[in-house]
Amino acid sequence: MSLRDEAAELDARDPLAGKRAEFDLDPDVSYLDGNSLGAPPRGVAPRLAEVVGEQWAGRLIRSWDEGWWDAPERIGDRIAPLIGAGPGQVVVGDSTTVNLFKAGVAAARLNPGRPEILVDAGTFPTDGYIAESAARMTGHSVRRVPVGALASEVGPRTAVVLVNHVDYVTGELHDMPGITAAVHAAGAVVVWDLCHSVGAVPVPLDAAGVDLAVGCTYKFLNGGPGAPAFLYVARKWLDEFDQPLTGWAGHADPFGMTPAYAGRAGISRGRTGTPDILSMLALDAALDVWRDVTIDQVRAKGLALGDFFLRCLDSLVPGARVVTPRSHARGNQVSVAWPDAKAAMGKLIARGVIGDFRPPEVLRFGLAGLYVRYADVLRAAEELRGLR
Amino acid sequence: MSLRDEAAELDARDPLAGKRAEFDLDPDVSYLDGNSLGAPPRGVAPRLAEVVGEQWAGRLIRSWDEGWWDAPERIGDRIAPLIGAGPGQVVVGDSTTVNLFKAGVAAARLNPGRPEILVDAGTFPTDGYIAESAARMTGHSVRRVPVGALASEVGPRTAVVLVNHVDYVTGELHDMPGITAAVHAAGAVVVWDLCHSVGAVPVPLDAAGVDLAVGCTYKFLNGGPGAPAFLYVARKWLDEFDQPLTGWAGHADPFGMTPAYAGRAGISRGRTGTPDILSMLALDAALDVWRDVTIDQVRAKGLALGDFFLRCLDSLVPGARVVTPRSHARGNQVSVAWPDAKAAMGKLIARGVIGDFRPPEVLRFGLAGLYVRYADVLRAAEELRGLR
Repeated sequence: MSLRDEAAELDARDPLAGKRAEFDLDPDVSYLDGNSLGAPPRGVAPRLAEVVGEQWAGRLIRSWDEGWWDAPERIGDRIAPLIGAGPGQVVVGDSTTVNLFKAGVAAARLNPGRPEILVDAGTFPTDGYIAESAARMTGHSVRRVPVGALASEVGPRTAVVLVNHVDYVTGELHDMPGITAAVHAAGAVVVWDLCHSVGAVPVPLDAAGVDLAVGCTYKFLNGGPGAPAFLYVARKWLDEFDQPLTGWAGHADPFGMTPAYAGRAGISRGRTGTPDILSMLALDAALDVWRDVTIDQVRAKGLALGDFFLRCLDSLVPGARVVTPRSHARGNQVSVAWPDAKAAMGKLIARGVIGDFRPPEVLRFGLAGLYVRYADVLRAAEELRGLR
Repeated sequence: MSLRDEAAELDARDPLAGKRAEFDLDPDVSYLDGNSLGAPPRGVAPRLAEVVGEQWAGRLIRSWDEGWWDAPERIGDRIAPLIGAGPGQVVVGDSTTVNLFKAGVAAARLNPGRPEILVDAGTFPTDGYIAESAARMTGHSVRRVPVGALASEVGPRTAVVLVNHVDYVTGELHDMPGITAAVHAAGAVVVWDLCHSVGAVPVPLDAAGVDLAVGCTYKFLNGGPGAPAFLYVARKWLDEFDQPLTGWAGHADPFGMTPAYAGRAGISRGRTGTPDILSMLALDAALDVWRDVTIDQVRAKGLALGDFFLRCLDSLVPGARVVTPRSHARGNQVSVAWPDAKAAMGKLIARGVIGDFRPPEVLRFGLAGLYVRYADVLRAAEELRGLR
């Protein structure tokens, strides 16, 4: 069977094929950049029109009491099942970077008397920058360690370990239960960055005993450009969670307007300022696409897309340097080292195959199971062959 | 002339009367809470539809290079004329609270070796909470001082003074040039909170030599519930501005993905994470209402509304305890102490007069010059009389 026939058959048999219709996507575009910016669910535009026209205009300030104020916790609880978290441990708001600062400082305070923060050496840059800032302000130093060496490098000097669940360049999926156990065995606290795993692979936060985590909603959760991020605090730490961005929205009595800060009980103490309602309710609408699918279904399709893409590459672009694990120890992306990757991606995009590139000279192809077709990944391989 | 006739004549002669049509407001509602949540400009809903449908759906990831990435600085420069700031000193993003943390820590770092941060004793609570957190993390202590005593209390031990331009309860307008000069004479750095003044009164940031400022866009700028805030850094401090939320979006080379943080030149180093585009471009659309009006016109109308409201109160609710200055040393609100203010405001809202209440027992009426009618403030006084 030709690869084209095979792609057609895989698409015809795909139990998630119908989900693509829930996204506003040009049928002629092969969109393989959902690991950077998820595609727009069709429900977002009408929801925004409703929020502006009926809630903001129609109810004005009263809307704060009619669903706006509690949106961060409510939407957090909608994300929770996707990351293996029980209710009351996830809150939505602020950017990933801001949440990393909250989690990093709070983690250091949970484990006083140890001088060092370990950071995944391949981390997305913002995590490292924020770790340095948190360390500077809490009297720690930062040491960068390859993820594979974390379990052996973590030790009695380590207060906190900050690690990415999926590497943003290579797509490698790291062992959350194993690394978490090693960190705990050394008496340290772990903060997981879920940006490239949430909505792509199952995340076992509660089961692995993770302490803190942050994640992004504009990639595989399709919340929209720069959509609010989320913060997870394990139930066991909720009472002790002492974060530095002590804004009025996390106060025990926000409308009491009292001069002394007192964090609200539960995950709400992870809140900071007034929640950004337009973006937050756009995300709320975007999460509706998960109503009738599970993360396991999406994961299964993502792996199948990746396996098929790897076969297409082997067949059409032999010798292409795939930097993503061929095993299933990967997230939902396949990355290919390619000379002059930026220019090459420009050509692919001009031909309707949208991925992106990252230094050093890596082409990234995201495989969002909710809307990517097997025909899309075949086309990507075909167009890559054309660039040779 | 009766107050009703007078209100009708004032509305008929109001040069800003036509602006109300640019807002999606029920004509039967007297909306006097624009100091908490501005009314929706009609341009916001279609702009959001365009951003989702044409930019996000139509251009996908490419939109980041087609106006999204630079939106924080571009929109900052649109706000700049409203706060007396030259270009390149204002950036939009994050919440007011998060920006207060950036400004507070950066201010303390600009003025090392002094142990104390002074905070306006009547401050909106979040400012005080964040000042405490910034002080805890930078080795300072916080002292709360009534605004009237700041000029005499600031001294050689003072690193930073954090003060509100307009008091959120009383509506008192504080003397920005005078207080700034006193703070500077003592060798300290000043951070102004503009939440209740931006879009309501002229703000002379550059002229007064202010160091840093933060402000909100969802009150008198009508950016939408929880819309992104802004940060002002005076040109003289841009090179030394060393803020703690060192995210990738403020990096000199954000897409270089280098491991060491290096802040970008100019106001961009005030950025932190990925900008929240839906909310930010909603704000961009909301700012269009300022195309053909000046802040001086809006200020003049706000004062005239306030003067008329005070006369209505004197006539219809004699003895009402107005806690806002009767002089023009006030922002765009009039506050009235009232027994059981929360229940009283509930009754007013049920009768179509929407304001809000704040502890202790204060009714607040915001006078947004762009859409409030003289008839609205008369109606508020009439309904208040009915509550006696």
